Amino acid sequence: MALIVQKFGGTSVGSPERIEQVAQKVAKFHAAGDDIVVVVSAMSGETNRLLALAKELSNKPSLREMDVMIATGEQVTIALLAIALNKIGVPAVSFTGAQVPIVTDSEHGKARILTIDEAKVQAQLQAGKVVVVAGFQGVDEQGNITTLGRGGSDTTAVALAAALKADECHIYTDVDGVYTTDPRVVSRAQRLDRITFEEMLEMASLGSKILQLRSVEFAGKYNVPLRVLHSFKEGPGTLISTEISTDKNEDSMEQPIISGIAFNRDEAKLTIRGVPDTPGVAFKILGPISAANIDIDMIVQNVAQDNTTDFTFTVGNLDYDKAFEILQATAQEIGAGQVAGTTSIAKVSIVGVGMRSHPGVASSMFEALAKENINLQMISTSEIKISVVIDEKYVELAVRALHTAFGLDAEQN
Amino acid sequence: MALIVQKFGGTSVGSPERIEQVAQKVAKFHAAGDDIVVVVSAMSGETNRLLALAKELSNKPSLREMDVMIATGEQVTIALLAIALNKIGVPAVSFTGAQVPIVTDSEHGKARILTIDEAKVQAQLQAGKVVVVAGFQGVDEQGNITTLGRGGSDTTAVALAAALKADECHIYTDVDGVYTTDPRVVSRAQRLDRITFEEMLEMASLGSKILQLRSVEFAGKYNVPLRVLHSFKEGPGTLISTEISTDKNEDSMEQPIISGIAFNRDEAKLTIRGVPDTPGVAFKILGPISAANIDIDMIVQNVAQDNTTDFTFTVGNLDYDKAFEILQATAQEIGAGQVAGTTSIAKVSIVGVGMRSHPGVASSMFEALAKENINLQMISTSEIKISVVIDEKYVELAVRALHTAFGLDAEQN
Repeated sequence: MALIVQKFGGTSVGSPERIEQVAQKVAKFHAAGDDIVVVVSAMSGETNRLLALAKELSNKPSLREMDVMIATGEQVTIALLAIALNKIGVPAVSFTGAQVPIVTDSEHGKARILTIDEAKVQAQLQAGKVVVVAGFQGVDEQGNITTLGRGGSDTTAVALAAALKADECHIYTDVDGVYTTDPRVVSRAQRLDRITFEEMLEMASLGSKILQLRSVEFAGKYNVPLRVLHSFKEGPGTLISTEISTDKNEDSMEQPIISGIAFNRDEAKLTIRGVPDTPGVAFKILGPISAANIDIDMIVQNVAQDNTTDFTFTVGNLDYDKAFEILQATAQEIGAGQVAGTTSIAKVSIVGVGMRSHPGVASSMFEALAKENINLQMISTSEIKISVVIDEKYVELAVRALHTAFGLDAEQN
Repeated sequence: MALIVQKFGGTSVGSPERIEQVAQKVAKFHAAGDDIVVVVSAMSGETNRLLALAKELSNKPSLREMDVMIATGEQVTIALLAIALNKIGVPAVSFTGAQVPIVTDSEHGKARILTIDEAKVQAQLQAGKVVVVAGFQGVDEQGNITTLGRGGSDTTAVALAAALKADECHIYTDVDGVYTTDPRVVSRAQRLDRITFEEMLEMASLGSKILQLRSVEFAGKYNVPLRVLHSFKEGPGTLISTEISTDKNEDSMEQPIISGIAFNRDEAKLTIRGVPDTPGVAFKILGPISAANIDIDMIVQNVAQDNTTDFTFTVGNLDYDKAFEILQATAQEIGAGQVAGTTSIAKVSIVGVGMRSHPGVASSMFEALAKENINLQMISTSEIKISVVIDEKYVELAVRALHTAFGLDAEQN
C-alpha cells in the first residue's frame, strides 16, 4: 500500500465529464489499496473569466483581493471532484489551501510555501478517505488567502508529497511521459521510463516544457519521486527521481549515456570583439545587460591573444535588439572593437547523467554533427549537458543525427 | 460618526458596473466619516451556475462539498467590491465568513450562527478601512465551510451589526422602503419612515416580502435597527426598530394607529361541520394536517351549539386538495358532519402597534368593509393585527377602502 499524491491540471478538470474521468482514475488507485491525495487546479477558462471581471473594475487591483478571488477557482474544483468521487462510492473530502493549512509567506500572487501541517490530511487518509486539496493556493500567517503563481498546482502537489512523505507524486499532463526529444522533429523519439531530476531540469529549461521547473527543483530538493502521466490514457509515464537504479539485476552497461536531446530555436547570439583582457571586464560587459532585465543563457570567452579576447553570449530572440544597443555603448566605453550578432541560430544540447563517467561523449557529439557538415559556432559544457550553437536551419538535422548517434531511436514497427 | 453595516444582495452586485455603483454608495458614507462594514451576496446567477455543475455530477451531492463550492460565489464578490472601492480611493479589505470568523454549527446548507469574533473587523475599521464581508457563509468549529441557507446574507448582516454594536444595519433592496400597502393595488400607498420589528414581521408574513423573516426576528432579538433602502436610488428608506419614538417634540396623537394593510390571495379555507364539542378535538383535526407537512395559518372555532361546533382553518392554495382529503377521513373518524371549503378567498389584515391603545380599531375596520358590502367569512385578531377572510374578488376593493379609512392615503399631487 502506497501513499500517492496525484495532480490534475485545469484541462483535466475542465468540465463535469472530465472531472468524472479523473474520479474514475483516482478510484482505481483507491481500490488497489493506495492512500490518495489529489491536488487540482481551477477548471480551464475559469481563472481567465475571473481576471476579466476584475479587469473591468481596475487596471491595478489589489494583489491581496485578486488572491481572494482567484482562489475560488480551485475551491470549486475540489468540491466537484469530491462529489464525483462520492457518486462512484469513493469516500472523499475536500480542503482549500487555508483549510489544510498550507502556510505561505505574504507575497500575494507569487507566495512561497513555508510549512504544511499534514495532520488533518493524515487523519482523513487514516479514515479511508481520498483527500482532495486545492492547488495553487495557501494562507499566510495572518490568515490572508495567497496564491503561488504560475505552475503553483504542481508545487502544491510536490510540497504535499514531501510533507506526507508520499511514495510518489503523479503529475497528469497532456503527454504520456518525457521523451528523448520532440517527437514532432524525430519520429523515432522514445518515452523514457526514468530520468533524474537534474536531467529533467536541463531538458525542461532547454525547451521540453512538461513540468514547471520550480516543482522539479522542489521535488529534487525533498527527494519526492515524480511521475509524469497522461490524464486520459493508460501507461506508466516517466518516473523522475534522484538516481538511476543500480540494482544488480539491471545491466548498467545498458543504461543510456544520454537521456535526451533538447533544442531551442528562440536564441540570439551577440559577440563583442577585441575586448581588453583585464580583470572585471566580463562584469563590465554583462552587468548592463542584466540591469536591463535581459536573461543571459550561454557565455563563451576564449583565451586571449595579443591581450584582447572575443566575448560571446546568447539571449532570447526578443531581447536581441535591446542587448545589441547596450553592447555597442559598452564597447565604446571599454575600448573594445566591433559588436556582431545574429538571431538565426539555435542551441542543441545532449543531456545525461551517464556522461559523467563516459569521457568520450563530447567527441561523439561533435563527430555526429561534423558528419552532417554542421558548423559549431559556440560550445558550452556542464556536468550532465553539452550544448552547441549552430545555424538555425540545421536544427532538425542536428537533433536527428544526435538521436541516432546516441542510440535513442525507437525500433521501427 | 456612526458604525453602519450595509448589505447588498445578488442583483445589486450582479455585474461589474453594478459593483461600481455599490462602491460609489459605500464611498459616500465613508466620506461622511462613518465606519462601514459591507455584506454582499454572490453575483446574481452565480449560485445557479455552480448548482448546475454539481447537478451534472450527482443528484445527491454531499452537503459539506456543496457548501465548499457555493461559498465561492460571495468570495468572488467581496474581492471585486474591495477592488472597486480601492479604485475610487476608498481603502478596503475583504473577509470570507471563515476569515472573520463567523462560527456556525455544522448543519451544512442551513447552518446557524453561534458566535462572531469581531476583533479582526474592528481592527480594520480602526485602521480606516471599509470591511467587505461575504454573506451567507461561515465556518464550523472543525474548520469546515458552512452556508446559512435562504436569506443568509441578511442574517449575516444583522449578526455582524449585533456583534459590532452597529448603529444601523442597512438592507439594500429593489424597493425604496416598506409601504403602507402594495402600491400596485393602492396608488396612494405611502412609504413608511418607521415601523416596529413586530409590525414588520406581521407585514412580511402576510405577503409584503421585502426582508427575510429570520433576519427581522434576529434584528429584533438583538435590537439592531434595520433600514430598508433602494440599491440604486437615493432616499431615507424605512427604519425598522424596537419602538416608535416618544420624544416630547413629536405629537403622539399624530402617530398612525395602523401602519399598513397586508393581504394574501394565496389562501384556501376548509370547514368541518358538526364537530362533537369534546376536549382534544382540535388536535384530532389539525394533527393529521400538520403531520402531512401542511402549514396552517388562521384557525377559528366558535362556541358550541347543541354540543357540536364548526371548525374552520386556512392553508396555502397548493395544499388545499391534500388537506381536504385528510379532513374527510378525520370527519368520519371523529363522527363529525360535512367537510366544505374553497380556494377563492383572500386574507386582508390591518397591522399596527397603535391598536393596542385604541380599542375601536376592529369596529372601524368592519365598518369600512360593511360600507363596501363585503361579507366577512372569518375574523382573527392578535395584539397588533386584525385579519379577515373575504371573497377573493373583493380583495383590491377591501384594501383600498381600509387604506383610506385609516388615513394612510398619500396626499395627491
